Amino acid sequence: MASASDRMDTIVSLCKRRGLVFPSSEIYGGLRASWDYGPLGVELKNNVKRAWWKAMVQGREDVVGLDSCVILAREVWETSGHVQVFVDPLTECLSCHKRFRADHLEEAFEARRGRPPTALTEVACPNCGSRGTFTEPRMFNGLLKTYLGPVEDASGLAYLRPETAQGIFINYANVQATARRKPPFGIGQIGKSFRNEITPGNFIFRTREFEQMEMEFFVPPGEDETWHQYWIDERTKWYHDLGVRPENLRHFEHPKEKLSHYSKRTVDIEYRFDFVGLEWGELEGIANRTDYDLSVHAKASGADLTYFEQATGTRYTPYVIEPAAGVDRATLVFLLDAYAEDTAPNTKGGVDRRVVLRLDRRLAPVKAAVLPLSRNADLSPVARDLAAALRRHWNVDFDDAGAIGRRYRRQDEIGTPFCLTVDFDSLQDQAVTIRERDTMAQERVAMDQAVSYLNAKLGPC
Amino acid sequence: MASASDRMDTIVSLCKRRGLVFPSSEIYGGLRASWDYGPLGVELKNNVKRAWWKAMVQGREDVVGLDSCVILAREVWETSGHVQVFVDPLTECLSCHKRFRADHLEEAFEARRGRPPTALTEVACPNCGSRGTFTEPRMFNGLLKTYLGPVEDASGLAYLRPETAQGIFINYANVQATARRKPPFGIGQIGKSFRNEITPGNFIFRTREFEQMEMEFFVPPGEDETWHQYWIDERTKWYHDLGVRPENLRHFEHPKEKLSHYSKRTVDIEYRFDFVGLEWGELEGIANRTDYDLSVHAKASGADLTYFEQATGTRYTPYVIEPAAGVDRATLVFLLDAYAEDTAPNTKGGVDRRVVLRLDRRLAPVKAAVLPLSRNADLSPVARDLAAALRRHWNVDFDDAGAIGRRYRRQDEIGTPFCLTVDFDSLQDQAVTIRERDTMAQERVAMDQAVSYLNAKLGPC
Repeated sequence: MASASDRMDTIVSLCKRRGLVFPSSEIYGGLRASWDYGPLGVELKNNVKRAWWKAMVQGREDVVGLDSCVILAREVWETSGHVQVFVDPLTECLSCHKRFRADHLEEAFEARRGRPPTALTEVACPNCGSRGTFTEPRMFNGLLKTYLGPVEDASGLAYLRPETAQGIFINYANVQATARRKPPFGIGQIGKSFRNEITPGNFIFRTREFEQMEMEFFVPPGEDETWHQYWIDERTKWYHDLGVRPENLRHFEHPKEKLSHYSKRTVDIEYRFDFVGLEWGELEGIANRTDYDLSVHAKASGADLTYFEQATGTRYTPYVIEPAAGVDRATLVFLLDAYAEDTAPNTKGGVDRRVVLRLDRRLAPVKAAVLPLSRNADLSPVARDLAAALRRHWNVDFDDAGAIGRRYRRQDEIGTPFCLTVDFDSLQDQAVTIRERDTMAQERVAMDQAVSYLNAKLGPC
Repeated sequence: MASASDRMDTIVSLCKRRGLVFPSSEIYGGLRASWDYGPLGVELKNNVKRAWWKAMVQGREDVVGLDSCVILAREVWETSGHVQVFVDPLTECLSCHKRFRADHLEEAFEARRGRPPTALTEVACPNCGSRGTFTEPRMFNGLLKTYLGPVEDASGLAYLRPETAQGIFINYANVQATARRKPPFGIGQIGKSFRNEITPGNFIFRTREFEQMEMEFFVPPGEDETWHQYWIDERTKWYHDLGVRPENLRHFEHPKEKLSHYSKRTVDIEYRFDFVGLEWGELEGIANRTDYDLSVHAKASGADLTYFEQATGTRYTPYVIEPAAGVDRATLVFLLDAYAEDTAPNTKGGVDRRVVLRLDRRLAPVKAAVLPLSRNADLSPVARDLAAALRRHWNVDFDDAGAIGRRYRRQDEIGTPFCLTVDFDSLQDQAVTIRERDTMAQERVAMDQAVSYLNAKLGPC
């Protein structure tokens, strides 16, 4: 097996070559650390989002969904604290003029030396190696601004959301009343967020525009710690269940003194990305946000965001447990842990090296490929009809270009669970050979049973 | 049947009351013309998007998907013409200080009088009725700006996309090569776009933040007109197929002199919204964009965006047919045409008035509701287990609050196709009564057959 960082390079190159992820605006030289998802990438990402939505919203009696705006009223971000405290310390190397987050430089120093630096002058520039060239850090706000309306002044100032969570808090009362829920219950949301990152990079790990899957789970005060642990366990299981290797995940407990202003306890699920200078990176954060958010919004807006519990005759502001995951990071992690190299038999009685993405079937961008044995006037229409029938249910490829072994390799490389080969016997027996990706085992299945065969193997989509 | 504009008011109120659409940032007094989708709204909207994706991307051999960034390189919008010509004429009434689009005022005048006004002074202010109070129109750019990086200056200036289409054009070569396609083929994309509208309003019809479903279909020059007509027909059928009444749709042919700079011919699918001052409004635009976009991007970037057709030995820049639909508008239209009022038998042998959303089953936000006949220690666990089993496949409600008739009304009002009632007989015969929304017909079905029963009725999700 290749080393982790080799694996990352391999995945980045596979993503480009096979149309999973392209550098954004590439024909114009690219936009720094910005990526577009190609035909296979958008299917994979949609499957990741659907798996989350099924596990966290639709599949649960106690969670409902929401889709709030990217641009909310400015007061939302003033109240949440983002306008004041959503800041990072920015420093610039005066020698090479590259900019860094001072806290990241200090953390990297500490990871190497086992102690934090006494001053930034002690730290060498990771770009040019100079020492003592960093400017005094200044605080830099991560909110992206825009202006609504015809005049570009303070009256039209608005922010692009840096998290989807606040959209949930301000809709809490409307959702609770219309969905007729009582704590404990949750509200989940998937959507784009934007942060003016100082140091975007590491492929789709850190970008200024990214997609989040967040769920705010509202609980009675006193039950918060138990529910927090519950969600840490549930979310960890979700990654395991979808194919992430347990040895590549760990929990990072945020030290008390470094907790965000709203948090009582935060645990990150970290993944062993093995980027240069970043072995373990955050995949998902699970925070006990207490009643901070609902309390400050209630106070600032005058809205009543308490819950009156009839059984006990008590009124309280719910505590909130927040599992907040990144769509792009989760997608990357599923790709990394699915990547494998092994061998497959070739037509000469030997074996060929093959690359195979052992993606969970729920995540695979293409569920099945229909391959006529050769490009032939009798086989092609039969194969096309079969592909059309399967397409009513799943994303399906049709490929008639090149030797069959090569076509298998192409499908293995993108993680297609099943290949259905239409051969000359098919014209007689109305059956196809279905080959499974991981075992490469083949089975003969009647064509009119193909949908139910795949349905049983692929499960609910 | 209520008049169209009454129907609109009814839908807006239903949306708020049942958690489909809320005014955004409502606890802070709202953000003008900005809406958040609640628990049922996000499911409905996701179903609209999924229906489009299945019809336009996954279900077709000749179309693939894409998901490009909201923020692209600035050059993209300079080249596309948006920085220069994405402008609207803005005028302000000096009496009431309300702002309007001058072209909209002129069009409304023409619709009333049968001729365009000779000057804006002739037009009365729709808000305060004053005449001769409009300022000279000035051109106002609809791009929302933001700034990337630590300094808010020209070097970091970026735009939020006003359409998803350009993200497709700049990825054309990457997609064509990696997906190994040749014209005619298409690239589809769903995502948020942003426009600094002067006059947002009319519920979710015109908002500054909205979601698009766009597909760019690349064809050999000469085949463009045929394909254009093909897509006009296909897209119209899509709305019919999903329940929009043919009499509420019409085609509007853009007059030659008013075509966008890139268009050879554009046909809008219009819907009879019956807003005040806007009887018919654009639901979807289908444009023949010619080779304009690929040509200008090729010229500005130096990229080769031509296609070499081996069969004929010719090289050409593909023409583009673009069906561009709005997710929010489509969602609104499906709701409006699904709304109905009729009567249902009540327990006293009479009939009650009922509101029913006759949404296509594929669009219904809740596919099935499980209703224990009463809140009872024997029935509830059975009903909850059944609901949990169905939830593996669909979005499912569980409701045990109130009389059964009232619960049916609640599900009818949100368009739930099937209600499954667990009664005391269920404990003996392991069966439930399944009631269909539109006919209110009831059938007794074994509980272990419920999934396959619904599967057959609901079809592929």
